[in-house]
Amino acid sequence: MPNLGGEFAFIEWLRRRTPLDPRVLIGPGDDAAALKLTPNATSLLTTDMLLDGSCFRLAEAGPRAVGRKAMGVNLSDIAAMAGCPVAAVVSVGLPRQGGRAIAEELYLGLREAADAFDTAVVGGDTNSWDGPLVISVTLVGEATARGPVRRSGARAGDWLFVTGPLGGSILGRHLTFTPRVREALQLHQLVDLHAMIDVSDGLAADVDHICKESCCGAVLRALAIPIHADVQRLGDSRSTLEHALADGEDFELAFAVSRTDGKRLLATQPIAGLTLTHVGECVDDGLWIEENEQRRPLQPSGFVHSLD
Amino acid sequence: MPNLGGEFAFIEWLRRRTPLDPRVLIGPGDDAAALKLTPNATSLLTTDMLLDGSCFRLAEAGPRAVGRKAMGVNLSDIAAMAGCPVAAVVSVGLPRQGGRAIAEELYLGLREAADAFDTAVVGGDTNSWDGPLVISVTLVGEATARGPVRRSGARAGDWLFVTGPLGGSILGRHLTFTPRVREALQLHQLVDLHAMIDVSDGLAADVDHICKESCCGAVLRALAIPIHADVQRLGDSRSTLEHALADGEDFELAFAVSRTDGKRLLATQPIAGLTLTHVGECVDDGLWIEENEQRRPLQPSGFVHSLD
Repeated sequence: MPNLGGEFAFIEWLRRRTPLDPRVLIGPGDDAAALKLTPNATSLLTTDMLLDGSCFRLAEAGPRAVGRKAMGVNLSDIAAMAGCPVAAVVSVGLPRQGGRAIAEELYLGLREAADAFDTAVVGGDTNSWDGPLVISVTLVGEATARGPVRRSGARAGDWLFVTGPLGGSILGRHLTFTPRVREALQLHQLVDLHAMIDVSDGLAADVDHICKESCCGAVLRALAIPIHADVQRLGDSRSTLEHALADGEDFELAFAVSRTDGKRLLATQPIAGLTLTHVGECVDDGLWIEENEQRRPLQPSGFVHSLD
Repeated sequence: MPNLGGEFAFIEWLRRRTPLDPRVLIGPGDDAAALKLTPNATSLLTTDMLLDGSCFRLAEAGPRAVGRKAMGVNLSDIAAMAGCPVAAVVSVGLPRQGGRAIAEELYLGLREAADAFDTAVVGGDTNSWDGPLVISVTLVGEATARGPVRRSGARAGDWLFVTGPLGGSILGRHLTFTPRVREALQLHQLVDLHAMIDVSDGLAADVDHICKESCCGAVLRALAIPIHADVQRLGDSRSTLEHALADGEDFELAFAVSRTDGKRLLATQPIAGLTLTHVGECVDDGLWIEENEQRRPLQPSGFVHSLD
């Protein structure tokens, strides 16, 4: 339902802040945005919705950080395909109380994240309602000439890597992460990426996604998994390894390459300023964690079965 | 936040129902969908969010009708640019109670509306939360070789048309309308569409949008405006004219063409099975309603000033 006056005033505020972009033929304020995408490039399309109380707490995070995260999680999805982000549209359901101020801060946060990756914000839909803040961002990107990297191309014998330390993102990194767009593009040029995913559900779950789509299994090496310093600060009863495997919202990339390419990557570290970690291998089937040369079943939830 | 198990089971359910489409290189289940769009065509991008209690009442409408509406309002936006819809992504926030059943019905409704216009549903994001149902659809389309039709090309002297009767959509048509995609494409071939919009905020507000973007004014003729039979059934104190001007969510098209093209359209009625109505003209400035050869100011809200 339209929210007259307020919505149009906000669109005007927003249009004044929208820089010219040669790829954007029609920006905010018409029935649809119009884009000039690269001819023959494969277009990528992803969407993510964030809900107050579930994906963030507005009162703690503030709307600007929520805007950055809402754009960031979509940028991370385009990174996971080794694509270039181009343009985003944003729809929001704003609480009636203070909605306009929230909308402006949200937009500034969205733009901070988008600007860092040369991504235009080209339109949206602004609503007020009696519920909590909800924001949905859809991002259009383009695959490079090498094509998009799927989850489905891993094979037994591939080496598995992650782009950074994992776990404990709930302490703040889930709001402040840097999407690995540039790193993915650089990796895509350097090696043949067989499969890739961004770590949003947790390393165990996301490696399991790769396995399911690739019809293979994986073994992760417990001592190789890089554990973020934040995990120590959590100080709860679960092991640091389980946090690194299960917490999620790290927004690092996990990917599979051939053994040869894996060795090459280790020899040319760091890549785009990041230290890559070789965390395991693809195998024929199952999801496993290996420690002291013993393999134990690993649940996609990150739960490590004891041996008995 | 991930909603393990349930979300992945739903994605599997959904993938089994996703037909092959040569334009869709990667469908639901990867980090992003991949599309092969027409080289050199201008891409169109639009998004709309619907919120329970504000844009629909789930308990009354049921999830399938909500799905149809969520897709329909986006199709209507692409129609308003005289474009062809191609592919959609959908993000939802589901109430925890009965969420999976709602998700399935929503999806079937989305697909009914999408299938009617050869539009693929290529991905999405499914969340559960403690709030009411919220759904956001983003649609990618393509402009025809004649280019997208903006709101900004109307000029004084143009004739204004609408594609169908207006008002009273709250009685049900706001859920069951047919987006005017085919009609827009046919009109775009027949005449030079100077400006176009879909009637979502109400005819007065939407003609005002055309005027603001086109830097002109408009006069609507009270007796010419087609009033939907639903308006009689509302039986409240506002005039039928005010309902037709203000109610909104009719999802008919309002457009401006030259006088010559306007006459041609009237001579070749019906267009794509629709009777077009000539409802007024563009003028230099102001928004007016004319009755008995007298012009009165018209508010974008649909309020008609009395003469005194």
